[in-house]
Order: sequence, then structure tokens, then C-alpha cells
Amino acid sequence: MEISAQVISIGNEIMLGHIANTNAQFVSNKLASIGIKTSKHLDIPDNPEAIISSIRKALSESEIVITSGGLGPTVDDITLECIQKALNKKLIFNKKISERIKAHFKRRKIKMPANNLRQALLPEGSMPINNNIGTAPGLIIPLTTILSPISKKWERARVRVLLAFPGVPFELYPMLENTAIPYLKKHFQTDKIIKSRVIKITGLAESRVNEIIEDILKIGGNVQMGIYPHPEEIHVKITVTEKNEIAADLIINKIQKKIESRLKNYIFGYDNDKLEEIVGKCLLRAKKTLAVAESCTGGLLANRITDVPNSSKYFKLGLVTYSNEAKNKLLAVPMGLIKKYGSVSKQVAALMAKNVRDLASTDYGIGISGIAGPGGATNKKPTGFVYIALSTKAKTICKEFRFIGTRNLIKYKSTQAALNLIRKTLL
Amino acid sequence: MEISAQVISIGNEIMLGHIANTNAQFVSNKLASIGIKTSKHLDIPDNPEAIISSIRKALSESEIVITSGGLGPTVDDITLECIQKALNKKLIFNKKISERIKAHFKRRKIKMPANNLRQALLPEGSMPINNNIGTAPGLIIPLTTILSPISKKWERARVRVLLAFPGVPFELYPMLENTAIPYLKKHFQTDKIIKSRVIKITGLAESRVNEIIEDILKIGGNVQMGIYPHPEEIHVKITVTEKNEIAADLIINKIQKKIESRLKNYIFGYDNDKLEEIVGKCLLRAKKTLAVAESCTGGLLANRITDVPNSSKYFKLGLVTYSNEAKNKLLAVPMGLIKKYGSVSKQVAALMAKNVRDLASTDYGIGISGIAGPGGATNKKPTGFVYIALSTKAKTICKEFRFIGTRNLIKYKSTQAALNLIRKTLL
Repeated sequence: MEISAQVISIGNEIMLGHIANTNAQFVSNKLASIGIKTSKHLDIPDNPEAIISSIRKALSESEIVITSGGLGPTVDDITLECIQKALNKKLIFNKKISERIKAHFKRRKIKMPANNLRQALLPEGSMPINNNIGTAPGLIIPLTTILSPISKKWERARVRVLLAFPGVPFELYPMLENTAIPYLKKHFQTDKIIKSRVIKITGLAESRVNEIIEDILKIGGNVQMGIYPHPEEIHVKITVTEKNEIAADLIINKIQKKIESRLKNYIFGYDNDKLEEIVGKCLLRAKKTLAVAESCTGGLLANRITDVPNSSKYFKLGLVTYSNEAKNKLLAVPMGLIKKYGSVSKQVAALMAKNVRDLASTDYGIGISGIAGPGGATNKKPTGFVYIALSTKAKTICKEFRFIGTRNLIKYKSTQAALNLIRKTLL
Repeated sequence: MEISAQVISIGNEIMLGHIANTNAQFVSNKLASIGIKTSKHLDIPDNPEAIISSIRKALSESEIVITSGGLGPTVDDITLECIQKALNKKLIFNKKISERIKAHFKRRKIKMPANNLRQALLPEGSMPINNNIGTAPGLIIPLTTILSPISKKWERARVRVLLAFPGVPFELYPMLENTAIPYLKKHFQTDKIIKSRVIKITGLAESRVNEIIEDILKIGGNVQMGIYPHPEEIHVKITVTEKNEIAADLIINKIQKKIESRLKNYIFGYDNDKLEEIVGKCLLRAKKTLAVAESCTGGLLANRITDVPNSSKYFKLGLVTYSNEAKNKLLAVPMGLIKKYGSVSKQVAALMAKNVRDLASTDYGIGISGIAGPGGATNKKPTGFVYIALSTKAKTICKEFRFIGTRNLIKYKSTQAALNLIRKTLL
């Protein structure tokens, strides 16, 4: 059976173009992973008539309807009431949810505003989805009748379900992944599945990747290929529609092997892998430790490394020596050296890497010095000019980079190159 | 006259969740700037029936319908044919467009694939919009008749227009801004403009903000109020529809003053202000300097501070003392103190703040120590338990926080609280 889903995103801020609708993307991506195709995304304002009629129409067209937005505690959060009306269901006070909401405030030692208890009024027949971050629960509402758009009467429906989520992405994501997707997988079995794999590449330009695998990108048939650029990172995506996972995996693995044989070590990971995680795994496996000294990246490298759980096992120290005095006092970079070559120089970056390694007694040391802009650029050293050094017991190497982009992009690209330098050394 | 618009985005890659629909946001934002409200965003796959019926339905509901996607030269680009069918118009070969397409390839010294000439076949009555980046032209198609969804007949329409754009964002953006928006401004004179202001708050929960300004949020009329939660930050948005900017500003400023009188110093900024920028401005104004010592935030605080151009003027040093040895060696935190109170303690955070200030000879020092999770939590100190200390020459204060969320969220929320601590001290 082919199952179709629709995503209805509710909020004036979407209609005014104040925010991009990333929830619809996230939901469709997760649905595709269990073989459910999304036939429509619909964004509408916080308007009761629009919400009620859109929910009814979507339920008359698709088996699964997912709403996001409007479940918060404030007066403009009207989705619950609209769902109740669209489905002709009573709102029933859910004691368990009210306890959870009270506990949420108690844990944070904040007095609970009375309004928050509105979030415990759920349409009858709802199964709440726990929200571990905010107070608004999500809802799964299995339906046996829907309002027919033709007869305008309530008629028995085949399998139908309405799911409602808060609009805050970081609340919706875990609720969808941990509760809704397993529920849908169990209750909506499909005869086709869609499977994707992302191959992640760093150290090559998009056009170069495109050239190397141009013939593979044109495969066609039940295979959809895509190439997506990210800062100092290229994603090649293989998407296959097949009768089951085994058949899809066979095709995907074949294409993946072909790509691997051409791009080799430029590939650092797959799917949800992050470069900082891969570097962390390499360090753990090799039982090596790391310290970093940053100037132009201003802490971003340490931040990305410590985004990885358990990074304390290999990451020992980060220094953000933004001033020359700090470089001198903490990293013993001689003022004479800075004066002679400039703080953005091969010599300074290399000494930062070596001395931070000494200071923290680690196996590896990274030193970064560059011009993130907009200020500080010269003709010889323009914005985006960055030195990245890696020091080991045996030697210290230093590479020169010229990145293009805004201050934030240059910071980010520099950390990509630094992480890749560690990765390549550990290969 | 109130004008409404709908945006239809066409593409399988949107329905599979491979890309977020940023075009719809961009279009709605630009429309709002000339007083045109978007009543719907609709995303649909590359499916002829869905495209044709969606275009017809949208034209029966709204004066302006904008499509994006499906104008490229490949076989899955079917929007032109669908528009032609939806509007019952012939396709006519446009010589000028065909010359432009040929010139595009000549300029890039690439042989033109024959398929590209399909892009010169336009529905009759179309005005092409030049595309200076790719080959697909955009279209403006003014309409005098539409297919009535009730009578199923072609009926005379009031002002109606269909605009079609390629789906590539960096092609769509300039075409929309330079050609379509001036066209719409001229032909759809709204006697109304829409203006917004965002008031940014930190240090209060969303529900508490809601309670304090509940009556203001309910103003209604031509004022639309919204309240949007972000991690340790609340945005209150005032959107006004008025006859001109001056009238809108009058109302916005009045509401803003009312909110300011209630939320006072919890407000840190407006519109595009970022907390780290505001803190930077405060430090510059007060001619004070800053150093930070981070443990659980792992460099994120230094990174956010250095995201601000010219932050080197006040930010001197960041330490990421992830290990106890680093806390001891670099910040002279006695091992005995760490053993007695734990590395996550008031005592350690306070000493980190004081000693990093001494080390960098700055006016302010920040010390952060906490449990970002998922590891390291205990019953007494659960995940999200964070101490943040601020040290000045006069004294050192330390605050205890209990944040909720993932590792990344706890890191981010901790930096929000740390930046706010500096801001409040400087007020």
C-alpha cells in the first residue's frame, strides 16, 4: 500500500517570511526514511478557519497528517482548539501531562504561570508525545472517521492519523524521531521504501567532485543522485526507491563503492557523521590526546571538538590567544617573532601548535592564526588568509589557506581544514 | 484593497526533505515589504496533475500566485507545460529568449544541449524575466480569465497574475527583487504596508513574558503580536499593517514603549541584534576588557564573543580548561579545592573567573563549570547543572543554573546566561 503524508505548518511568522520552514523538511526526510512519501507541505497563518479547513482537507487526501506550531502556552497558540474542532472531539484534561508540566517548572525552580495548564487539555483519544525540552506535549490522534469533503458528513475512514507537534524545531526533532516515527513505522507498512545515503567529502571543490563522478551522477532509473555544497564539505546523496531495504542497500552499496574507489580519502564520513565526531573517533582509536591554540577561529575549533560527548577523553586544553600578549604570556611566542613575521605567519602558527602541545602534554597540538575579517586585512594577507599548524612529537607542519566568505564562514572553514589535518595525520 | 498571494514550490527534492524551502520565505518576506500578505505556501512534487490543479486552485483564491522550480532544461522540469495547461494557453517560441540562452553558452564556451531551447517556449501573453545567472527565464503572466472551481468554466477575473521562477535560490532572488517586486508594486497598489519590530528578551521564561504582557499580545486590529521562544531568549514581534511607514512606526513605537516599561532590563536588543554584539558594544562603551575560562561550554562562549567584528578590542583571552590538570596548571585552581568541592562547584567556577582575569589583566573574568551531559551527571548535579561566575576587581559573584536540553543546547544556554551576566553588570 502506498501511504501519503501531508505536513501543515502553522504560524504567521512563516507567512511573513520571518523564518524558513525547516520543520517540514525534517518531517519529510524522516518519513521518507520509513518509505512514506510526503505529497504536500502547506504553510498557513494562525487563523482558525484556515487551520480547521486545511486539517480536514488534508485528512480527506492523505493517511497521515502532521501539524507543527501553535501548541505553546500563549494566546496565539490555537492549534489544539482547531484540531479539536476539525475532528469534532472534546478536550479532556490529562492529569499526567499536567504533572509533567508542573514538574518542568519545579525542576527549573520557576513559578508556573496558570496558562501553561491549557497545554494539558487534549482532544479525546489523543496519545501524548513527551516533550523533554519544552512544556507543550505532542499528540498522536488515530482516527476512524473523517469529514467527507463531498458528502459533508462524517464517514468511516481507512487508516488515518493526525500528529501534532510544537513549532520549535529543537522540541519537534526528538519528539518526531523517538516517538512518532516508531509509531508510524509500526502502523503504516508500505510496499516501497525510500533509502538514502550521504557520502561526505572534504578537501575538494564541488566542481572537482562533480567532474570525478559525473557519469555516476547521471545513473537515473530508480536512483536519484544529488551533490550539495557545504562550507569546505561536499555531500553526495544517493536515493533509491525499492521494494525493501535489502534491495535498496544492494544498489546503494554498489554506487557507494564506485564513488569510494574514485574519491578515496577525501571521503571522511557518511549520513549523519560530523567531521569533529570522526576526528574524535580517530583520536580515541589511536589513544592520542589533543590541545588547540586558536587565534582567528576564536574558540570555534574547541567548541566543535567539545560538541562531541566524551571529548574530555582526548581533548585536554583549548587556548584562545586573541591578543599578542596572550600568545606571548601563555604560549611563550616571543614578541620578537611576532614583530618580525607578524602574528599571522607560518612561524607563529607553528609555535602556537608546538607550545600548546607542550603546555598540555598532549600527543597533538593545533595552532591557527589568520585574518577572519572584516578588519585586519592587508594586500599580502587578505581576509581569509589562514595558517594552520599541526605539531606532533616528531614534527610540526604548517599549511597556508585562502578562504572566501564572511567572518563566520572563514572561521568555520578554518576549523574544517584544521579537523581534516588531524584526520589525515591519523589515517 | 487587500491583496493576497500564494507561493507554490515545485520539486521532489523538497518533498523528500533533501532541501529546506527557503524560496517561499524569501518571496513572502519581499511581498510583505510592499504590503502583500501571503496566505499560503504549498510545496508539491514534480507531478503534472498536482501542479495544474494547485495553480488553478491558488488562482481562484488569491490575486497573485508565484511558482518556483521546474523551469530547467531537463526532462523532469515540467512547470512550463503545466502552466500552459492550467491557464489554457498556447506555448509560443520566443526568439529573444532563445538568443539569450545561446549567448549564455557561448559566453561560458560550452556547447548548448538541444534541450535548453525548450526554455524559450513561453505561454502566450508571458513577459519574460531575465535570468543573469542561469538559462531559465522567469515569467510574469497577467490574466483576465480563470477557471472557476464552482462552475468549472473560464470566467472573467479581477486582477490576477501568475509569476514563475526557477527553483535555484540564487537565480530566483535577483529576478524577484529586480523585476517582479517592482512590477507587483506598480500593478497591485495596496494602500497598506506591513512593518515589523522584534524585541529581544533574555533571563525570563516564555510563559512569564506572556503573563507580563498578556494584554498587549491581545491588541488585535491591524496589529499582529507574536511571541517566539529561542534558547534562553524570547522574541516579541510587533507587526503592523498601515497606510504608510510613518503611521506604522507610530503604532509600533507606542507598543514598544509599553513593553519596555514592563520588561525593562530583560530586554537586551531589537530586530537583528545578537546578545554577543550587545555585550561587545557595552564593553567598548565602558572601555572594559574581558577574558573567559570555560569548562562545559568548551569554547562556545569565546567563539560567540569573537563572532563579532573588532572583538579583539575587548576580548583578550579564552581558556578551555577541559581537564582538571589544565584548571590547575593554567588557572592555579588547587587540586585540593577540586577534590573537596568537585570541578563543577561554585568555588571552582569563581576561582576560574578570578584567575583568568588576573592572567589576562582584564577588567572582567568569566568562569563556567557545569555538566553538559550526557555523561558526568550525578543525583546532586544532574545534566544541565551549571555554575557561572563573573569576577571584577571589586568582587566575584557566582550563579547556579539548571538548564534543560541536549548537550549542544546546554552549552548554548550557558553562554546566553554568561553573556547576560556581563550585560547586566555593565548596565
